[in-house]
Amino acid sequence: MDSYSPKNFIELIEKTGVLKKIPRMGWKMRGVPECESVADHSFRVIFISMILGDILKKKYTINFEKLLRISILHEIPEAEITDLALGPALSVGRDVKHRAESAAFKMIFEKFDFADFYFNTWMEFETTDTIEGKIVKLADKIDMMVQAVEYERTGVRNLDDFWKNIENFEDYEIDFIRSIYAELNLMHRTMTEKK
Amino acid sequence: MDSYSPKNFIELIEKTGVLKKIPRMGWKMRGVPECESVADHSFRVIFISMILGDILKKKYTINFEKLLRISILHEIPEAEITDLALGPALSVGRDVKHRAESAAFKMIFEKFDFADFYFNTWMEFETTDTIEGKIVKLADKIDMMVQAVEYERTGVRNLDDFWKNIENFEDYEIDFIRSIYAELNLMHRTMTEKK
Amino acid sequence: MDSYSPKNFIELIEKTGVLKKIPRMGWKMRGVPECESVADHSFRVIFISMILGDILKKKYTINFEKLLRISILHEIPEAEITDLALGPALSVGRDVKHRAESAAFKMIFEKFDFADFYFNTWMEFETTDTIEGKIVKLADKIDMMVQAVEYERTGVRNLDDFWKNIENFEDYEIDFIRSIYAELNLMHRTMTEKK
Amino acid sequence: MDSYSPKNFIELIEKTGVLKKIPRMGWKMRGVPECESVADHSFRVIFISMILGDILKKKYTINFEKLLRISILHEIPEAEITDLALGPALSVGRDVKHRAESAAFKMIFEKFDFADFYFNTWMEFETTDTIEGKIVKLADKIDMMVQAVEYERTGVRNLDDFWKNIENFEDYEIDFIRSIYAELNLMHRTMTEKK
Amino acid sequence: MDSYSPKNFIELIEKTGVLKKIPRMGWKMRGVPECESVADHSFRVIFISMILGDILKKKYTINFEKLLRISILHEIPEAEITDLALGPALSVGRDVKHRAESAAFKMIFEKFDFADFYFNTWMEFETTDTIEGKIVKLADKIDMMVQAVEYERTGVRNLDDFWKNIENFEDYEIDFIRSIYAELNLMHRTMTEKK
Amino acid sequence: MDSYSPKNFIELIEKTGVLKKIPRMGWKMRGVPECESVADHSFRVIFISMILGDILKKKYTINFEKLLRISILHEIPEAEITDLALGPALSVGRDVKHRAESAAFKMIFEKFDFADFYFNTWMEFETTDTIEGKIVKLADKIDMMVQAVEYERTGVRNLDDFWKNIENFEDYEIDFIRSIYAELNLMHRTMTEKK
Repeated sequence: MDSYSPKNFIELIEKTGVLKKIPRMGWKMRGVPECESVADHSFRVIFISMILGDILKKKYTINFEKLLRISILHEIPEAEITDLALGPALSVGRDVKHRAESAAFKMIFEKFDFADFYFNTWMEFETTDTIEGKIVKLADKIDMMVQAVEYERTGVRNLDDFWKNIENFEDYEIDFIRSIYAELNLMHRTMTEKK
Repeated sequence: MDSYSPKNFIELIEKTGVLKKIPRMGWKMRGVPECESVADHSFRVIFISMILGDILKKKYTINFEKLLRISILHEIPEAEITDLALGPALSVGRDVKHRAESAAFKMIFEKFDFADFYFNTWMEFETTDTIEGKIVKLADKIDMMVQAVEYERTGVRNLDDFWKNIENFEDYEIDFIRSIYAELNLMHRTMTEKK
Repeated sequence: MDSYSPKNFIELIEKTGVLKKIPRMGWKMRGVPECESVADHSFRVIFISMILGDILKKKYTINFEKLLRISILHEIPEAEITDLALGPALSVGRDVKHRAESAAFKMIFEKFDFADFYFNTWMEFETTDTIEGKIVKLADKIDMMVQAVEYERTGVRNLDDFWKNIENFEDYEIDFIRSIYAELNLMHRTMTEKK
Repeated sequence: MDSYSPKNFIELIEKTGVLKKIPRMGWKMRGVPECESVADHSFRVIFISMILGDILKKKYTINFEKLLRISILHEIPEAEITDLALGPALSVGRDVKHRAESAAFKMIFEKFDFADFYFNTWMEFETTDTIEGKIVKLADKIDMMVQAVEYERTGVRNLDDFWKNIENFEDYEIDFIRSIYAELNLMHRTMTEKK
Repeated sequence: MDSYSPKNFIELIEKTGVLKKIPRMGWKMRGVPECESVADHSFRVIFISMILGDILKKKYTINFEKLLRISILHEIPEAEITDLALGPALSVGRDVKHRAESAAFKMIFEKFDFADFYFNTWMEFETTDTIEGKIVKLADKIDMMVQAVEYERTGVRNLDDFWKNIENFEDYEIDFIRSIYAELNLMHRTMTEKK
Repeated sequence: MDSYSPKNFIELIEKTGVLKKIPRMGWKMRGVPECESVADHSFRVIFISMILGDILKKKYTINFEKLLRISILHEIPEAEITDLALGPALSVGRDVKHRAESAAFKMIFEKFDFADFYFNTWMEFETTDTIEGKIVKLADKIDMMVQAVEYERTGVRNLDDFWKNIENFEDYEIDFIRSIYAELNLMHRTMTEKK
């Protein structure tokens, strides 16, 4: 513990604080006023991950420490790269984005001896090989689609491409997740459809 | 799992989403522009809790699942009560605030069978009897004082009562924590003092 | 007059200025972007009080000095307590809220010899025993429901609990007030209902 | 009272509500973030008018009903004309501005039988012939210079022309007012001067 | 070139930067959240002018240097006068507004030897005597009505007076322009009409 | 002209309108409140390009139509890619960024017969082979450093990396440009240095 420098620690905390400041660009590009920050999003993804874990643990064996660590780390590279919405991400290329995020992730933690451990944890979100990585991916999508409903409730009417993108409805064939998306789709249609 | 209703689940997620919308009132009352949301704060408290845990685990036995759960839940009652800054909290009385928060917490989770488990977890932040509760309390203060430095860097000059309140420098006699506060105080003075 | 200190005077003005900075939390919690401040609300409540007074004076004997003083003072405690929306107010308890506001009110004016006079004036809003207190209460509700219509006009669609709360339609059995609420309800339904 | 139409009443309230939305342009042009609305300003001018009245009434005979009515009405034309900062006002010409404001004021109230009464009340602010008109003028300046200090406290450093404009320190030779300006100038210099 | 002072140059650039800060008041008065700045509007007017030029050059002889210069200069006086929406402009009188803008324009450039050249260029927007002036006028209206559609897409529902004002649909009898307005009207009706 | 579709035209204008909505991320990441949009920046770059052109034309032969076209187009790819600040751009790699921007540029204009002409014009900003491309590059830097001074005037104190990056002071060995940077550096130091 003596090897940890207060300066490095504070620098890391400040770097992570950038996520409080940068907006989720997908909303911003569509003109959503006072749209959420990446940290706002991250917070609810973490919360949803925990709730989903506690719901799904009756059917799956879940390592909660790992689950929560993945959820906490999943957006950290954006503190360096900022938030690329789907369009921009496709423009630079998903593999380029992943390589840039990997490099950024390593740089952010390079002065800490748990850097490799964190990187490997974060990679489970990227690969979704494990049940914990999958749950965080589900939480990431659920937060986004609930947020879409919430913005539609304040009047926003140009989020159709979110609802049409099947990637946003990944369910890993879990019934409960399917029922959530079904409910969200119903809320969306009730609000936006004209009879 | 079949007993969980998608409606109740989405309602819980939406309720928690209120934390994305409400500002941290202590900053707001002092005129800090575009100040952080309660969710912004919560995100970094969770992150700091994990980092502190990984630093302190060489000296303390830490249950990480519990630690992260406490950090995730620590501001949840504010989704119902909203954020009472220090002044307002003293005005209504800290015991009243705690009772209101307890009641709010229970109400938020009342439709879920893990309600009691969550309440007991949250209470560890309130009592700080355990090392995990203490670490989240430290993370709560560190996020706030780093944020104070960050706002001072954008020009804000009326945060003196934050720096003078010794409650904001709780260290549980841990040397590393002391060194962090010392560094933050130095950053603060360098920025705001006139020679 | 010599007994008034410029420092105390400026401190009072600055304290009141907090109302310019804090948002009306009921709107904020529902995600209304760029929502009004407590001072914004207070200004129109004062204005409506004067207009209602000038309309109702043909039927009632109204002390305008008292009426306007009540309207000016009615939100002053929020400079100390900040704004508790209906939900949070019920959570801490209305009596607790009233006691906290009373204490805050007294503290704000404690250095001025008109403190008692101001407190007694403010109490007429709390008790609504007098016609002047009642008119300010009406103005408080009318401003809120006109504001609800205005936010609905910018797209907001989650204010139903405002429209369903009969406390927001207090009319003290005055026909003109009833006709205003009827008109507002019509505007609300025209904007939000689907045929 | 039967002659008042709910529609006209609501239209008037909505028109006045524009003041909640438009920023005080003098601050806005200088890049003050999240700057106050005209309604924010109006609220504190009304409040200061009442306080000044209660302080000055030991030396002057003050009609409080008139005083408060003037303060409430003094910015109403801006609901139609919007806020012209000093520079723009000089550009269009002060007499043109006054004529436009007079016409706007009359139009706003034209459907109400108290239109002339209100107009004559408002004119006392424009001419400052009466002690009540003078007090509102003082309150208008005091709110502005306290606000300048408050913005300087959040870092703003380009308000020098406010401090150099002697029109902003009108005191009508009242000692108490002079002592307030002296105190504000001291606060300003302490914050912005370098030693 | 030696006669140009860096101070004067920077002062001019800073003055023009005011346009980044002031909101388009027509939207602001109607409560559009996070509404565009005058510079935002100016940018797209310049862009549309270029596009329209490249489309219309098959039928008209267009001086592109002149066209783009007019579009760049068309809102410059607002850096001094700020933005008067239609209502306020009618209140002060259009001729008064034009005279104030002319004086402001001259003052802004008075220290530069191209002041007269710029003024004459700007006047072509005011008089629309030339094809270049006409195209910028068209671009000014098209940007506004596209923006109206975009705000309606985020929920805003009180822009009817924009759609009813025939001045906003000036087409100089050009078929392509007519077809654009027809398309915009269709988009507007689809979004806002109830069946 | 008949081949131009109103739908394609409006779609292009809407796409470009995204620049009004997205913030300049370099400021945003540093917590500058209410920071400028990419369109705000673009507007002043265009304006500065014209002014610099009119100043430099005594020494250089400048094609103003080309100069202004380059300045108008220089940020257009960001409507698709959004704004990558310096750090993020280095993370994804400058060549990757350029390729992504090129592809985005082509896609934006693909339905218009002037697509190639526009692309070649934009490339002059990327290569700065021509005097016109160079002037726009200078304008791009000057707008940014004037903006830095303006944000420092509202209190921001963490822009040091902007002042230390020599790329931000490209002058192409033109004396007038050097004198502008010298003046800006002086303004910066006067504001931020402590004696």
